Amino acid sequence: MNRIEQLQMRMRKEKIDICLISDSKAIDYFINQRFHSGERLIALIVEKNCKPCLYLNKLIPCNLNEYFDLVRISDTDNAICMLAEKCNGKHVAIDKMWPSHFLLELMQETSHTSFTTATLVDSLRSIKSEEEKEKMRIASSNNDKVMAKVRELIQLGKSEKQLESEIRLLFKEIADSDPSFETIVAYQENCADPHAVPSDKILEEGMSVIVDMGCVYEGYCSDMTRTFFVNKNPIQEIYDTVLQANLAGIAAIKPGAKFSDVDRAARKVIEDAGYGEYFIHRLGHGIGLEVHEPFDVSAVNNTLIEEGMCFSIEPGIYIEGKYGVRIEDLVLVTKDGCEVLNHDSKTDEVLIRK
Amino acid sequence: MNRIEQLQMRMRKEKIDICLISDSKAIDYFINQRFHSGERLIALIVEKNCKPCLYLNKLIPCNLNEYFDLVRISDTDNAICMLAEKCNGKHVAIDKMWPSHFLLELMQETSHTSFTTATLVDSLRSIKSEEEKEKMRIASSNNDKVMAKVRELIQLGKSEKQLESEIRLLFKEIADSDPSFETIVAYQENCADPHAVPSDKILEEGMSVIVDMGCVYEGYCSDMTRTFFVNKNPIQEIYDTVLQANLAGIAAIKPGAKFSDVDRAARKVIEDAGYGEYFIHRLGHGIGLEVHEPFDVSAVNNTLIEEGMCFSIEPGIYIEGKYGVRIEDLVLVTKDGCEVLNHDSKTDEVLIRK
Repeated sequence: MNRIEQLQMRMRKEKIDICLISDSKAIDYFINQRFHSGERLIALIVEKNCKPCLYLNKLIPCNLNEYFDLVRISDTDNAICMLAEKCNGKHVAIDKMWPSHFLLELMQETSHTSFTTATLVDSLRSIKSEEEKEKMRIASSNNDKVMAKVRELIQLGKSEKQLESEIRLLFKEIADSDPSFETIVAYQENCADPHAVPSDKILEEGMSVIVDMGCVYEGYCSDMTRTFFVNKNPIQEIYDTVLQANLAGIAAIKPGAKFSDVDRAARKVIEDAGYGEYFIHRLGHGIGLEVHEPFDVSAVNNTLIEEGMCFSIEPGIYIEGKYGVRIEDLVLVTKDGCEVLNHDSKTDEVLIRK
Repeated sequence: MNRIEQLQMRMRKEKIDICLISDSKAIDYFINQRFHSGERLIALIVEKNCKPCLYLNKLIPCNLNEYFDLVRISDTDNAICMLAEKCNGKHVAIDKMWPSHFLLELMQETSHTSFTTATLVDSLRSIKSEEEKEKMRIASSNNDKVMAKVRELIQLGKSEKQLESEIRLLFKEIADSDPSFETIVAYQENCADPHAVPSDKILEEGMSVIVDMGCVYEGYCSDMTRTFFVNKNPIQEIYDTVLQANLAGIAAIKPGAKFSDVDRAARKVIEDAGYGEYFIHRLGHGIGLEVHEPFDVSAVNNTLIEEGMCFSIEPGIYIEGKYGVRIEDLVLVTKDGCEVLNHDSKTDEVLIRK
């Protein structure tokens, strides 16, 4: 069963007549081509029992196989009216990323039509096929290889920006890839910002160093964080707490558990050590064609975990103005637990430098 | 009157109670800071008579002045419910780019609430202040300077990709800027694709060369296209037709004219020459903090042109498999016509090379 057929099966189950897919990565997932349509409307329309149809501006080159119909839109066509005809009176699931103005226009042009978010696309994408699993493994294995080199590159006197640009080169060299997101390199107090942007700060003895990075393999993303120290670790207790939280989170993963259970398992370790208020974000996020995909590993997400899902486990403790620690791995849910996709060490965090 | 006050004035006129702004460039326009919130909700809420308020995840650093209120959201907060409380029973204008799933959730959590697209933000942004005009002028002047150098860089035997990467370096060197969009360098038959991506194609004698490029000055974008020929122009008539269309479009611009009138003026030149079917896109697009902003210069846009608007005029003729010509300038609408922001020549298109 191909992906469109899997989607149609889910549509029948959820009584959805039409699914409108617009995000370029979501379209790529279904038709294996990526389009950049800018502000121009693009929509892959999937109906329960019809040939799927791509609505695409005629300026954008496209090679579709015969499994799909293609409707070419010109700059003077009213594409919304074309879609409205299809949607009228139906139950329509809308791509979560569709710009609101298109949805509001479509609502105005239709009657007796109900709209819902196309969460079924997220659910489908969250379960990785064997082929996708293999790509996720390779992306993470490449990330491991680069992290091994990063250990050597962390040197006293080097700035965050320098290290970040060296990592960019390593990704090219080792993984033939750009970073899957802007690499985070943060020293000492900058580690307290989970989304720190590399600065000119220079590395000194005993500082904490966070490196949060990923690359891409055939469209699929990796994402891993390690925290290092130079010559000594002055916050061993905090490091160990985060490491234990990372391991407790991973240990709680199995099909049938809730994402909130996994968040709880990790968060409890940090709370019990007295640092609960300093773990200021969700435990993790789904990952695949995008670095951040549904579902959140968070206290408020009671979705059940299923075999084949892939997500991050990334507890952290952040003390503003002082330091921060985060340890992140990707996991792939198996029949009775999970496979950790990162094999990079989490225990040799003190780097000896002269 | 600052931008928030101008927006509030428009809201009173259009009987809108609340304006929800979420796009990072739109927020930047109003509060002069750019946030990257990824999939996390971000919203600047402007009410007619209240202090504007930014809803922002607490992971994202922020320095707001006291003109704005700040509401910090955590990963476990239900941000939609927080917004719904404000919006209930009101007439709400929604950022055109807000992801549909947020809007659908908000609709579910509110009652007696009407939603419309926040086109008033587009209208406001479309009229450039004196300060913005000056930035647009400088961005285009820098683009002119780079285009002058590009003339020298166009050489027989050079690939599209090579030229593109040389242009990237020129933008850094001359304008201290990245390109405002992916530079288009296309030779001969590749010129027939208006959105061509640079390839390994090598330049030969008599080929047409399209360079469509822009840079950024203090956030504001430039965008210009020139078509060149090496040693001879075998399609002089087509070139002249596009040039005359470009000039006719520019001549038709004045406050009170419709965008569709301007499109007509240029398109008529191309139609009269017998190439109407080969001009396959709108005549132009608005520009400012983004390369493509409202409003379209198109046959179906009857919006009235106002003083201070800035947009592109870019007619083209595209013969698939053979060649293409496009000539694009930016214009700024004045009291009784327009100021062309590009001063680069459009008539010395044949480059003599040994």
